[in-house]
Amino acid sequence: MAKNKGPRRPKAQTPKGFRDYFGAEVSARKAMLDRIAAVYHRYGFDALETSAVETVEALGKFLPDVDRPNEGVFAWEEEGDWLALRYDLTAPLARVAAQYRNDLPSPYRRYAMGPVWRNEKPGPGRFRQFYQCDADTVGAASVAADAEICAMLADALEAVGIERGDYVIRVNNRKVLNGVLASLGLADEEQQAAVLRTIDKLDKVGEAGVRELLGKGRLDASGAYIDGVGLDSEKTNIVMQYLNSRSVFDSISEPEGQGILPGSSADLNSAVLNNLRLLVGDSQEGFQGVRELMEFVNLLSAQGYDSKRIIIDPSVVRGLGYYTGPVFEAELTFEILDEKGRPRQFGSVAGGGRYDDLVKRFTGQPVPATGVSIGVDRLLAALAAKGRLDSAAQGPVVVTVMDRDRMADYMGMVNDLRAAGIRAEMYLGNPKNFGNQLKYADKRGSPIAIIQGEDEAARGVVQVKDLILGAKLAEEATVEEWKSQPAQVEVPRAELLATVRDILGRHG
Amino acid sequence: MAKNKGPRRPKAQTPKGFRDYFGAEVSARKAMLDRIAAVYHRYGFDALETSAVETVEALGKFLPDVDRPNEGVFAWEEEGDWLALRYDLTAPLARVAAQYRNDLPSPYRRYAMGPVWRNEKPGPGRFRQFYQCDADTVGAASVAADAEICAMLADALEAVGIERGDYVIRVNNRKVLNGVLASLGLADEEQQAAVLRTIDKLDKVGEAGVRELLGKGRLDASGAYIDGVGLDSEKTNIVMQYLNSRSVFDSISEPEGQGILPGSSADLNSAVLNNLRLLVGDSQEGFQGVRELMEFVNLLSAQGYDSKRIIIDPSVVRGLGYYTGPVFEAELTFEILDEKGRPRQFGSVAGGGRYDDLVKRFTGQPVPATGVSIGVDRLLAALAAKGRLDSAAQGPVVVTVMDRDRMADYMGMVNDLRAAGIRAEMYLGNPKNFGNQLKYADKRGSPIAIIQGEDEAARGVVQVKDLILGAKLAEEATVEEWKSQPAQVEVPRAELLATVRDILGRHG
Repeated sequence: MAKNKGPRRPKAQTPKGFRDYFGAEVSARKAMLDRIAAVYHRYGFDALETSAVETVEALGKFLPDVDRPNEGVFAWEEEGDWLALRYDLTAPLARVAAQYRNDLPSPYRRYAMGPVWRNEKPGPGRFRQFYQCDADTVGAASVAADAEICAMLADALEAVGIERGDYVIRVNNRKVLNGVLASLGLADEEQQAAVLRTIDKLDKVGEAGVRELLGKGRLDASGAYIDGVGLDSEKTNIVMQYLNSRSVFDSISEPEGQGILPGSSADLNSAVLNNLRLLVGDSQEGFQGVRELMEFVNLLSAQGYDSKRIIIDPSVVRGLGYYTGPVFEAELTFEILDEKGRPRQFGSVAGGGRYDDLVKRFTGQPVPATGVSIGVDRLLAALAAKGRLDSAAQGPVVVTVMDRDRMADYMGMVNDLRAAGIRAEMYLGNPKNFGNQLKYADKRGSPIAIIQGEDEAARGVVQVKDLILGAKLAEEATVEEWKSQPAQVEVPRAELLATVRDILGRHG
Repeated sequence: MAKNKGPRRPKAQTPKGFRDYFGAEVSARKAMLDRIAAVYHRYGFDALETSAVETVEALGKFLPDVDRPNEGVFAWEEEGDWLALRYDLTAPLARVAAQYRNDLPSPYRRYAMGPVWRNEKPGPGRFRQFYQCDADTVGAASVAADAEICAMLADALEAVGIERGDYVIRVNNRKVLNGVLASLGLADEEQQAAVLRTIDKLDKVGEAGVRELLGKGRLDASGAYIDGVGLDSEKTNIVMQYLNSRSVFDSISEPEGQGILPGSSADLNSAVLNNLRLLVGDSQEGFQGVRELMEFVNLLSAQGYDSKRIIIDPSVVRGLGYYTGPVFEAELTFEILDEKGRPRQFGSVAGGGRYDDLVKRFTGQPVPATGVSIGVDRLLAALAAKGRLDSAAQGPVVVTVMDRDRMADYMGMVNDLRAAGIRAEMYLGNPKNFGNQLKYADKRGSPIAIIQGEDEAARGVVQVKDLILGAKLAEEATVEEWKSQPAQVEVPRAELLATVRDILGRHG
């Protein structure tokens, strides 16, 4: 630029990958989280709010060979120590469970809700700060603890507005897979890990892809050849049988989701358990896993969480490498339209499971833990798709300003409305242009505007303008309707509150 | 250490200057903020949640001569750009008001609640992450906007449990001081700023100290000599008269706080205004300030915010250098004991005022703004001192586990209680040692423990143990009372819920 314009002005810009949330976005999320928190609280879970900042050492993201912590977290150095923003709510829980282990009740049930930060490349819909909502029980080894988390998850989903029938919770158990691998003679830990990594790709590469990757390998989409785990076809078949030990019944099930087996769908869970029991052979760990699954569904079905909601499904493999016992995933089964307008199932909104090495990094002692994490943005999107978002954020009643000298009168009107619990405000911009006041009311989504000029004041009346009805009439009304349903009424000042109440009540 | 103990374990430690919040601490703060948010919402304010991370440039903390941003913020470099955690909620509002100026309604009323971060030396009670709670109106120049914020602050204080009579809001106006300085012939901006800085020390150095510092200077506590502003004694007197233009009436007022002037304490506000009007002489700006103050209290008193709650007091000088018009401070007037056991007034919990250069840094255009910030931790401390903290965090009813094989039965009891909205949980630790289960219930603050062994199960009954009564009896009861008020009752399983309800009701 040729001219010197004085000091350079800073850019008013949210940093890349971050975003701001306005009005209804904040209120809707808060309302959802409040409902979830009420369920967690009823289950005996206590709130925990750790600081956003942790030592990099405590987060466990410090790579021993480099000075700079890895790129996944936002970190900075301070007098030789590295600090970082938490990247999830589990790492801080581990730190807290170790730090306060002598003071906390054991088992320790806690929930946490708040933002986490990821230093990743932002993309469409992928942000570097987002909310997580976790509940965990630390120090309880029993399957009852896992089952309780699952019941609580179901209750939480229903509390926010996901109806029964619109969700299922799929359950699996890491020990069963370990048993299957043991029965195949795959004792080598690296090979076991390779199988885990491979079946974790089920969502991405599909069944055929997993089959190839368990064997020799496959060409990926980019044309590169990906080496396989190297199982022979018999072993590959058994792993695939494991993965399909539930879906094998799908193809022969009736449309209502009832299995063809005689009786209720509870028999389907039993049939899957039978399959699994055969597949784990004589592996003790596998047998244990099958027994845990059985206990899990039995405990839940005794409380009414039946097999229409809680489903044993060994194809739930996401995170199996991380969890050590039961794992589960909540899936919404209703359809939405994808970006291309095709119907598809909404899919996963929450997941969790047992991970027994939570505080071992800190204390050297293993501590059993089990928990769930709800995908806050996913669940909000689901509620939006179902029209279930809390719309508490209705615009305020706007009292317009016709006469600068009577601000106290206008404030008095606003005050009367507020005292009755009605959201209301006086127009605080420059009142000169009355059209701007109505435009403002429109932008605020106001249901009602109040008008009192000199003339009305002298007569002790106010004009009450129903903006919702007005907009509707302007769109579609006949002349008769215009006349019979006036969108603006004149009432005595003393009847202002009653009139506003009446109109708000009419619009629900 | 002599022995190699394997890989070094990370320390489980909150970073220095940060802290964790547990259970009731989280719930109490949340309950308080929810109540404040409800008031703000009723006043037409919309929630805004900006990202925790801002560009250092937008925060305005970048020092032009150094590569590293100043030490007051937590900052890090990313591909040449500096990012930082926000240090307050006003800087992000300024950025948002500039960034979205074409989309936001104008005036824009917003509130924001959330953590902010300060890279300062931590001290006792001084943390590097803490909550702020702000409400601001951007784009409204009128005194009505300032008065509304003050009314809202009063309503918010009462909504969280500070009773009328326990707080006052002291109001001042920067323009009045400017007028006083102008009438003294102090046109030099640097000298004006020096006076501002000096009277800002009133809290710290007292009236005599300010008097010395306005004149030649004084020895501070460390023995160092601090140069004064250099006003002559006549000018110093006038500045002191300004500062005392309210307190001059205190010494002659009656104990109830009523002035000796005839009539109500409203006359005291009028008397102060008269004083100020004399002090500003013929300064236009000063006269304008006095008029604004008058309009401010008139608007408020018309709505019932009378001069017992809203007080004109020129000794409110904190932040006068920052604000451009009205300033105010909410003070709690009840007494608490300080660290040394001496009674003292609780003091300030919130403050705010008008600052008209909010977005100018970004756009070059001045935009009028006015707002308030509530000191979240201060207000929480006040509520704690008044016994007004929300204690929603009562411990859960604990169903103990006597028989591992009947977990489903115990879960059923818990379920019945939860379904009735009662906070309840099954003991999930190792059930072997029953004493541990009761110790656990104690640590959780449980009001009731439920017990059902083999024998009770066979007879279809449960033991319901009233832990609150039990603790009370153990402390103070006679043998007769022990007998007449059994802390443990046996009831049929079908009466479990009713019995628990009954006991909880008894303890309120």
